[in-house]
Amino acid sequence: MFRDEDRSIEPMAVSAEAGVWASPGAGVLGVERRLAQRMLRYLHNPPIRVVMWNGESIAPPGNPDNPDAPPVARVVLRDRAAFYRLLSNPDREFGELYSAGRLVIEGDLLACIEAVYRSMTAGGSFRDHVPGRLHRVGANTLGRSRAHIHRHYDIGNDFYRLWLDEAMVYTCAYFAEPDMTLGAAQQAKMEHVCRKLRLRPGQSVIEAGCGWGALAIHMAQHHGVHVRAFNISHEQLVFARARAHDLGLDDRVEFIEDDYRNIAGRCDAFVSVGMLEHVGPSDYQTLGRVVDGCLSETGLALIHSIGRNRPMRMNPWIASCIFPGGYTPALSEMTQIFEPAGFSVLDVENLRLHYALTLRNWLDRYEQSADRVRWMFDDRFVRMWRLYLAGSLAAFTTGWMQLFQVVFTRWSNNEIPMTRADLYRPTPRP
Amino acid sequence: MFRDEDRSIEPMAVSAEAGVWASPGAGVLGVERRLAQRMLRYLHNPPIRVVMWNGESIAPPGNPDNPDAPPVARVVLRDRAAFYRLLSNPDREFGELYSAGRLVIEGDLLACIEAVYRSMTAGGSFRDHVPGRLHRVGANTLGRSRAHIHRHYDIGNDFYRLWLDEAMVYTCAYFAEPDMTLGAAQQAKMEHVCRKLRLRPGQSVIEAGCGWGALAIHMAQHHGVHVRAFNISHEQLVFARARAHDLGLDDRVEFIEDDYRNIAGRCDAFVSVGMLEHVGPSDYQTLGRVVDGCLSETGLALIHSIGRNRPMRMNPWIASCIFPGGYTPALSEMTQIFEPAGFSVLDVENLRLHYALTLRNWLDRYEQSADRVRWMFDDRFVRMWRLYLAGSLAAFTTGWMQLFQVVFTRWSNNEIPMTRADLYRPTPRP
Repeated sequence: MFRDEDRSIEPMAVSAEAGVWASPGAGVLGVERRLAQRMLRYLHNPPIRVVMWNGESIAPPGNPDNPDAPPVARVVLRDRAAFYRLLSNPDREFGELYSAGRLVIEGDLLACIEAVYRSMTAGGSFRDHVPGRLHRVGANTLGRSRAHIHRHYDIGNDFYRLWLDEAMVYTCAYFAEPDMTLGAAQQAKMEHVCRKLRLRPGQSVIEAGCGWGALAIHMAQHHGVHVRAFNISHEQLVFARARAHDLGLDDRVEFIEDDYRNIAGRCDAFVSVGMLEHVGPSDYQTLGRVVDGCLSETGLALIHSIGRNRPMRMNPWIASCIFPGGYTPALSEMTQIFEPAGFSVLDVENLRLHYALTLRNWLDRYEQSADRVRWMFDDRFVRMWRLYLAGSLAAFTTGWMQLFQVVFTRWSNNEIPMTRADLYRPTPRP
Repeated sequence: MFRDEDRSIEPMAVSAEAGVWASPGAGVLGVERRLAQRMLRYLHNPPIRVVMWNGESIAPPGNPDNPDAPPVARVVLRDRAAFYRLLSNPDREFGELYSAGRLVIEGDLLACIEAVYRSMTAGGSFRDHVPGRLHRVGANTLGRSRAHIHRHYDIGNDFYRLWLDEAMVYTCAYFAEPDMTLGAAQQAKMEHVCRKLRLRPGQSVIEAGCGWGALAIHMAQHHGVHVRAFNISHEQLVFARARAHDLGLDDRVEFIEDDYRNIAGRCDAFVSVGMLEHVGPSDYQTLGRVVDGCLSETGLALIHSIGRNRPMRMNPWIASCIFPGGYTPALSEMTQIFEPAGFSVLDVENLRLHYALTLRNWLDRYEQSADRVRWMFDDRFVRMWRLYLAGSLAAFTTGWMQLFQVVFTRWSNNEIPMTRADLYRPTPRP
């Protein structure tokens, strides 16, 4: 589906950057062949081929059930130095080299990444991630958070508008019905969240990390609540305020440019959709205390976040180029928000396959706008974001990433819904 | 509601057991008065009174909002030695002394325990339970498990029949509709579990810890699956086998007297309702490996267990007299079943208030049969089980205990339900 634009790899196409490591047409040494095979073994021999800078193709041991099965894709290393950089730190350098065009995927990029994830699952690679040891990431200070958020979200609203839905929702949608459009599924997600919070007109809601304001606006418009929504991305808030103003919601939605750690005041419901990924585990207890400080005695709270099946470190390329300061927690780590602060978890729903569908939509739309993205930025940026979107999609289709929605409340709150049947009652959509 | 049969406490009623500590009519010393007040302070001054052996009543500092509010109940210590035993280890001795009739509740037993739990919540007592430090309990070896299970479940089917529903379900019911009877709510619980497992006719199911067999029989009878159900309580299995035989289900339900650790073979669904409380945290990873060893590639699994809002030690009286070897985990602890074994959590539902309703029913029925229980056992037994049932009910109404139903599957399984709407579709009840 999503192929590199340049599929005609010439064996001698060695970049000048390769420096002393390569000369045009240089042959592959026996040791390099063995290193490439070892790299494939490390990935538990996925059905892909590594193509060296001189055109030589290196295959993993064949599938014993089907030895003639064609490879899903070919990973072409365009110069010898790229090969050594990849070997030195594959998790990080794959993204770097791909973005730079020195590593090219011949065939389907998505299928290639999925094949690697699947073979790693089958080989038990997830067991390499030792719970409680690898999730130490640097704390996000107030200043660092601001810098990180600025870097990702202030790229420009025009860029996100190219491939997000109309309401500019940049989190997992909810495909309540299989044939929903992305826009409808984002509306359904917001409605699902509102239902889980059992919002009633006149209530006050605090939202931590409001993106472009779609959920805050939805809650005010369709559930008659008063929302105070916090965000530290200036560009997003400018957009959100303008949209709320246009809809005549100035008196019901307040967008506040401040960090979640500075939230004060009381609310009947607390909601945070897609912010936890930027919080970092060392601040989960802080977030729990923030909710404890503002939630009413019978209030419900909801946190929606990308998660993992077990504690795992972030991909270092994503952590450095896409989401600096980001971390996606396992459920065991998320409990640190709830348990120390004295909350009771009422409901956890894993929407993994919904994020796969969401990303499928985003990636399709992104590819349709690739020329425009190239015009706005450059080739490198186009490839970087393609890899980020396709890689994320592959992680959701193969189970390497999850999406958890957690509803929680105070320990002593007995005004909780007895069942979840009300979430699924058909009612006229707003 | 549930009052002690003997409410006429005479000040001089000092038992012979009190020994050297007391002589009839002995006065209360100043230091004893202060100790009683300190005990009330430790409980964050609940609205109860302590009545000493000579009739002297000691109150916590009054409610500043309502200084004349009557106490919810009076805790009467019938001899001086009982007072000192209670002081020495209140969590354990309260149950011992109550069972022995040396500590009597004047007023509503349930309201009394609820009042204590509520004041402890308000005072933040739950923070005394330090995560990761207090949940070390002795491992349950195969032999020890058998002894523990024998002690609780082999008391006699006739005893449980007095106050359980007709199908003999001794786990949290599901009151899908508010006016359901206990029996209907137990059927609804079993159906809710079957729906969560998305059972289809012809599938094979393994059940770990099957009690008197109600769920295994329900699955075979109403969902056309083949069930292998494990249990180490001999009395329960005799009952379960007879019932399955009477219903003509011998070819579809197999009851196996063996430990969950010895489960072998494959299944399309794995279910365990109310067994985890007997497993103990040191075997959670073992349980995860057992499920990993038997669940098919696309199978769903469900574990239903009493839980906590944070890791907390068991009440020592419950752990010694009622559920030896028992432990009720926080969600953070339960994740040790799923995460190391490579499972993905799909759905967590907290049914706390359903357990409160279930226990309300059990306690009502138990009280109606109290004379019969006394005839089968003795006064001490009647009081012991009254306290266990009322104390558990109070723990569920005040949030000190939870009921978690967790659905999980393999990391790589994409044949998972997209939404939970199917759980709530009205269909003709079997």
